[in-house]
Amino acid sequence: MVEYIAFDADDTLWHNQSYVSEAHAQFKLLMQEYLNGSYDGRYLYETEVRNSKHYGYGVKSFGLSMIETALELTEGRISPEHIRFLVNLTKEMLAAPVQVLPDVEAVLDELSGDYPLMVITEGDLLDQESKFVRSGLSEYFRCIEVVSEKDPFCYSRILRRHRIRPEEFMMVGNSLRSDVWPVLEIGAQAVYIPHRPTQDAERLQMDDPKPRLYVELEHIGQLPEWLEARLLAA
Amino acid sequence: MVEYIAFDADDTLWHNQSYVSEAHAQFKLLMQEYLNGSYDGRYLYETEVRNSKHYGYGVKSFGLSMIETALELTEGRISPEHIRFLVNLTKEMLAAPVQVLPDVEAVLDELSGDYPLMVITEGDLLDQESKFVRSGLSEYFRCIEVVSEKDPFCYSRILRRHRIRPEEFMMVGNSLRSDVWPVLEIGAQAVYIPHRPTQDAERLQMDDPKPRLYVELEHIGQLPEWLEARLLAA
Repeated sequence: MVEYIAFDADDTLWHNQSYVSEAHAQFKLLMQEYLNGSYDGRYLYETEVRNSKHYGYGVKSFGLSMIETALELTEGRISPEHIRFLVNLTKEMLAAPVQVLPDVEAVLDELSGDYPLMVITEGDLLDQESKFVRSGLSEYFRCIEVVSEKDPFCYSRILRRHRIRPEEFMMVGNSLRSDVWPVLEIGAQAVYIPHRPTQDAERLQMDDPKPRLYVELEHIGQLPEWLEARLLAA
Repeated sequence: MVEYIAFDADDTLWHNQSYVSEAHAQFKLLMQEYLNGSYDGRYLYETEVRNSKHYGYGVKSFGLSMIETALELTEGRISPEHIRFLVNLTKEMLAAPVQVLPDVEAVLDELSGDYPLMVITEGDLLDQESKFVRSGLSEYFRCIEVVSEKDPFCYSRILRRHRIRPEEFMMVGNSLRSDVWPVLEIGAQAVYIPHRPTQDAERLQMDDPKPRLYVELEHIGQLPEWLEARLLAA
């Protein structure tokens, strides 16, 4: 029986990928000026992945990776003015308005009466805490946990800290890799709510090892009804 | 009666300021090349403080602030090659070896038998967790809490989460601003162990509002004996 529900933040509670995509698009445009239109956008992703070992996830890592990628792709020809543009782009991402996704507030309002809710998210500590406060949603949650890597070990640690048994815990999020599989691995439950249109790519890239152990909902608005139906069926 | 002890990390458990100072020195040398020796080093600190509102604390923030400061001080004349040097300097700081301060391990070994210990530190999440593991000290601690700002609210939240009453809690650290005053403010106890030689500057800059409510030790090695003397006196 579920007693505690945790939500992922970026692209589960509020928009994020749209800002990241916009920054990627601006970066690509800039690189194409230097590379006669031949940059396909991929190298920045590769730098991000390579740097995540050192930097972790989040906007500051993304900013540093943009600068590094620009230096490499242009072979040092990038102008200081354009480096400044990338620094400013990073700051703009941190200051971007928090746009809560549809139905989220109503769902949290309903569920927070019945369950203690928490947020578990990756990213920069201050950035995620700031978005949490600016979202206006913080009153619905007991706490936010910003973590460096959503792996089974991390989820176990959070549950231990809050004295929650895995079978009482449910994670809701838009990533199979971060919000679903590691949660299933520790014996807890997961609800997968893809954030279209960016999400299908992830699903196609990965083999799904446990196709029947999580539920997939099309939209967060379906969550309260689904939980209630489960309760009645139990 | 103290039941739980928490330690600051940077310059309380391991060296940090020496790496930061070294990076500042390298940055200053670079700027002096551009500014005919006239850069006194202050502007980078000012940029760091200004940016901490957006970026929070930590090495990634420092790296982005170095790049921004270099662009401003040189009025865009800095070469891409030197921007790359600053990116690499940032990565080197993240990869720097963790040098545990003298006596720390013996003190933790002794105290961890009698008290649950934790680490409470500011900085980048992944960087601090990585240093915690690489220090070889993690076995002595129940947990590490990486926080965005060590204010009274943050300490209260940590204590609530761990079900610790303020009067049972003691913080040990090298910063009056982060480790001592906010802890006293919530009714808990604090031990101040300055990290010489960088620390005296902080003390001179600030009025000390509660001079008698914390103890100052010269060295972490004195902590077990001081705790024992207090127990006997109680």
